[in-house]
Amino acid sequence: MVITIKNTQESSVGVVETKYFEFSDFESESGERIDNVILAYETYGELNEEKSNAILILHALSGDAHAAGIHEGQNDPGWWDSMIGPGKAFDTNKYFLICSNVLGGCKGSTGPSSINPKTGVPYALDFPLITINDMVNAQRHLIDHLGINRLLAVAGGSMGGMQALAWLIRYPDRIRSAIPIATAARHSPQQIAFNEVGRRAIISDPEWKSGNYYDALPPARGLSVARMIGHITYMSDASMSEKFGRQRKGASQSHKFTADFEVEGYLRYRGDSFVNRFDANSYLYISKSMDNFDASEGKPLQDVLQGIKAKVLVIAFKSDWLYPAYQSKEILKACKASGVEATYCEVDSNYGHDAFLLEVEEEAHLIGHFLGRIFYEYEVAENYAI
Amino acid sequence: MVITIKNTQESSVGVVETKYFEFSDFESESGERIDNVILAYETYGELNEEKSNAILILHALSGDAHAAGIHEGQNDPGWWDSMIGPGKAFDTNKYFLICSNVLGGCKGSTGPSSINPKTGVPYALDFPLITINDMVNAQRHLIDHLGINRLLAVAGGSMGGMQALAWLIRYPDRIRSAIPIATAARHSPQQIAFNEVGRRAIISDPEWKSGNYYDALPPARGLSVARMIGHITYMSDASMSEKFGRQRKGASQSHKFTADFEVEGYLRYRGDSFVNRFDANSYLYISKSMDNFDASEGKPLQDVLQGIKAKVLVIAFKSDWLYPAYQSKEILKACKASGVEATYCEVDSNYGHDAFLLEVEEEAHLIGHFLGRIFYEYEVAENYAI
Repeated sequence: MVITIKNTQESSVGVVETKYFEFSDFESESGERIDNVILAYETYGELNEEKSNAILILHALSGDAHAAGIHEGQNDPGWWDSMIGPGKAFDTNKYFLICSNVLGGCKGSTGPSSINPKTGVPYALDFPLITINDMVNAQRHLIDHLGINRLLAVAGGSMGGMQALAWLIRYPDRIRSAIPIATAARHSPQQIAFNEVGRRAIISDPEWKSGNYYDALPPARGLSVARMIGHITYMSDASMSEKFGRQRKGASQSHKFTADFEVEGYLRYRGDSFVNRFDANSYLYISKSMDNFDASEGKPLQDVLQGIKAKVLVIAFKSDWLYPAYQSKEILKACKASGVEATYCEVDSNYGHDAFLLEVEEEAHLIGHFLGRIFYEYEVAENYAI
Repeated sequence: MVITIKNTQESSVGVVETKYFEFSDFESESGERIDNVILAYETYGELNEEKSNAILILHALSGDAHAAGIHEGQNDPGWWDSMIGPGKAFDTNKYFLICSNVLGGCKGSTGPSSINPKTGVPYALDFPLITINDMVNAQRHLIDHLGINRLLAVAGGSMGGMQALAWLIRYPDRIRSAIPIATAARHSPQQIAFNEVGRRAIISDPEWKSGNYYDALPPARGLSVARMIGHITYMSDASMSEKFGRQRKGASQSHKFTADFEVEGYLRYRGDSFVNRFDANSYLYISKSMDNFDASEGKPLQDVLQGIKAKVLVIAFKSDWLYPAYQSKEILKACKASGVEATYCEVDSNYGHDAFLLEVEEEAHLIGHFLGRIFYEYEVAENYAI
């Protein structure tokens, strides 16, 4: 079995469209109800007749349903376009890919910025405090709707990896494999701390108004600061040194504390541009769902993995200090201890946490081969069964 | 030569008082003038007749002149009380210790919150953009005033270590030794980035008002966020896990995003309490002076160390990821390459950057022995000279 992985932009899925799936009466883990849920999603490739080639792609904190290809009239490829397409790791010639924006998001799915049908105004903080399990539960409704009984794989990095773990533990019989990347079974206090200071920046912004800003200006400055903090943690000391060094910008300065180092200008730009594409309340809800996530809910992780037949590929990146490799190794160890078939790979990369989006070559090989094996084993099993 | 180091609170320097040294017409590196400079300082121990036992202690970003002992009627010991006192690393039975609040600070020394004699109102952003060299230059005026020709040592951690390096390079003949601890010859882009996001939080606070907030409320929320970010970087993943784990507070919550993990409550408390003791503009000025600092000003560090006779003790801490050990090793390497006598020690500690304040035992031994040797060598040299 020879698998060739292409990473080039040439092998694109082309022009894609976001679709919307609607269902009613969702009950969150906290017991609160959402009358009507919309999930924005995209699909790439074709679902085969046996519906055995479907893979669910799971996005990170600020991601969305647009994982690959381009939208009509726009140039920006989806956030994991380097990994999804004909001949790529998630090979659209073989597999049917699905990516949905999470519940609680702001990119087409129902979240705090959506209109609450009971009041006719956005939910804001009346939106239930959703969990990673709620996100996964909503995705399961979408998978049901698409008529897929069993996914070939669920795969994602960072918060996407948490969702992959939640799928593995909550719906083990609905998946053949899970690929949690650059993630953790639960946040350490340092990870909570970085999220909390971002939330605090948003909440401290007078424009936040306890979340009721939708008829006025958003808390842009607070959200920008939150995103700046995020960006520092997504990169590594080494990747920042390579990218920026101590270079200064030549631009004129409006006051003594205008950004003058390149790295300062970059962070400010990334912070400010984030404000145009993300909702501050969604940032609060989603980051909190990550902090509250505990794959095994206080129990040892190996206890909740007992008896699971789905196979696991755990990937970590050496320079990722936000989700350090030891957290991925803990997942591997729990799989091994509970008899779940699991493979672990630590990819050498300078990119830090961003590596799961940028250090594509080795990641693509690992995932391409893993999926090829899972799919092959499934087909063999089916043929024996006939 | 046997040196016994005591760390106990019992061996305190006792009740101390902050003193103030005033001098006029200070010119900053940028060429701007400050008509009148006040430096707040404290001293512990006795200056000997030869004035050969004086050590200058240099504080970090948010430090002050109160390094040891207690102030009348108060209980809080100085910020390095565990290191300074009778029988301690900086042994007040043998040495005369001086610690001054930096120029640009807000703890008694002249800074942006001081009254500008030209206008009768606080300088705010009319205060010159001071440098680490400016801080050291102002300290030199104080040392002149105290009649000390040559300091036995200059010592400090973090920004204090930068000042120690600046003393070493700018005034090598005024010191016998330098002890830069948990520091860097220049900030990496990651270090700049963390400072910048703190500054941005302050500047984004509407109460900041381009620095002109002294007749109204300070930018408390922004400064609190800046301090929260700082605290995360001062601790380590391991020390946070040990201290907080995923413990939650039992307290009632005012809204969905009130702190509920212990670590969140701790950071908010530390952020909010910082506001009562620190000036936001000083935070901007001092953090910027750190980012702008480059011990060798673009040249290789070893080039500017050539011919320096002062001896150097470089200390780093294993879990310090804000000032990683490789930065201290660069200082050591440059010393070696230029023929400066230097010793390096990497102390095993889980405390992260805070270790220079907390991991006292090994640090105290290293410094106590180093100072003992320097002082002994000096005395021997003097005796031979007689």
